Amino acid sequence: MPTEVPVVEKILSANDRIALENRRLLDGQGIVAVNVMASPGAGKTSVILRTIEALRGRLRVGVIEGDLASRVDADKVAETGTPVVQINTGGGCHLDAPQVQSALARLPLAEIDLLFIENVGNLVCPTGWDLGEHVKVVVSSVPEGHDKPIKYPGIFVVADAFVLNKTDLAPYLDFDAEIFRTALRALNAEAPLFEMSCKTGQGIEAWADWLLAPAGA
Amino acid sequence: MPTEVPVVEKILSANDRIALENRRLLDGQGIVAVNVMASPGAGKTSVILRTIEALRGRLRVGVIEGDLASRVDADKVAETGTPVVQINTGGGCHLDAPQVQSALARLPLAEIDLLFIENVGNLVCPTGWDLGEHVKVVVSSVPEGHDKPIKYPGIFVVADAFVLNKTDLAPYLDFDAEIFRTALRALNAEAPLFEMSCKTGQGIEAWADWLLAPAGA
Repeated sequence: MPTEVPVVEKILSANDRIALENRRLLDGQGIVAVNVMASPGAGKTSVILRTIEALRGRLRVGVIEGDLASRVDADKVAETGTPVVQINTGGGCHLDAPQVQSALARLPLAEIDLLFIENVGNLVCPTGWDLGEHVKVVVSSVPEGHDKPIKYPGIFVVADAFVLNKTDLAPYLDFDAEIFRTALRALNAEAPLFEMSCKTGQGIEAWADWLLAPAGA
Repeated sequence: MPTEVPVVEKILSANDRIALENRRLLDGQGIVAVNVMASPGAGKTSVILRTIEALRGRLRVGVIEGDLASRVDADKVAETGTPVVQINTGGGCHLDAPQVQSALARLPLAEIDLLFIENVGNLVCPTGWDLGEHVKVVVSSVPEGHDKPIKYPGIFVVADAFVLNKTDLAPYLDFDAEIFRTALRALNAEAPLFEMSCKTGQGIEAWADWLLAPAGA
């Protein structure tokens, strides 16, 4: 269907133009933005909540929550006193730059150093969409199994950092960390991997310390 | 972007036309097809493998495996002696009817009563695509959390049956089964819910018995 191509190109370039505007706005405010991508239920919100706690008094965090529907996650973040805006995509399978642009207009940017943008739970569609973020993080979780990099390679290729969450469940599962790491490194040799448990708090500090560096606190 | 609409409509109707052909082909062979949808790592392949085992000698199963890349799942199914075809979508976020049509041409249909079509791991994009299946199943898993129906409502609305997998992990997680069931029933009052653990085998029989009925063995 060759008639489809020009339309797709037009949409992508419109998105990229607004992503560029978002990045300029964030840069002007000295904000580092982190696009958090994962399967549904990998623990994106838990990672964000634990990180807010770990960085308290060191970095001022803001959050954009992306979901098809509901404001469950935004309510959890708001309870911590962190500025948060919920985007409901209404069925859309990923966030796009215009959605983030409208959320940025509703956040107190002067009071934020580090902005988490929690994408829709999806290991495929968010891969190709620039939101204007500085860092792309993929959160995996032990119960999902060690074969996720093999099955969903694209998102692992574009990531700047990896979190492996729910390590506390490892004793009850057949997760082979060596297969996971080998598959991940075949796709992406450079991005750091942070293994953690949001339940116990184990491993959060190393991740928070890494965020302090690019966020320039 | 109104120019986009006619293109999308054209793609959808082409898909639906081929889905209809797939369904006629399957009906002519007396095959019941089950579209298995879930998040990445919910246990779609494990459910299929356990079901093959449970139905052995009662129903002849065939499998179409959908993944972005790799043939990890197809190899696991092939080890059981079950006819299987792997579709690699090459980055595509869901299966479509033409892909299933080409897979059907490579399966020994006369030797199959029940066909599992394992979709790409994704709780959003597979929702609107008819593959020619007779039954849509959504597999959730306990580690994903009880809020998935609230956050990804569309796919729970269209399902004909639900599996809740990895119940063996419940003691180690804060999964609230009551919230899950209430949210699910608000979206879909009719479709049966089968709670199971592919690790222990608990709950597989009730699911397998239910499949025996529509598959008409």
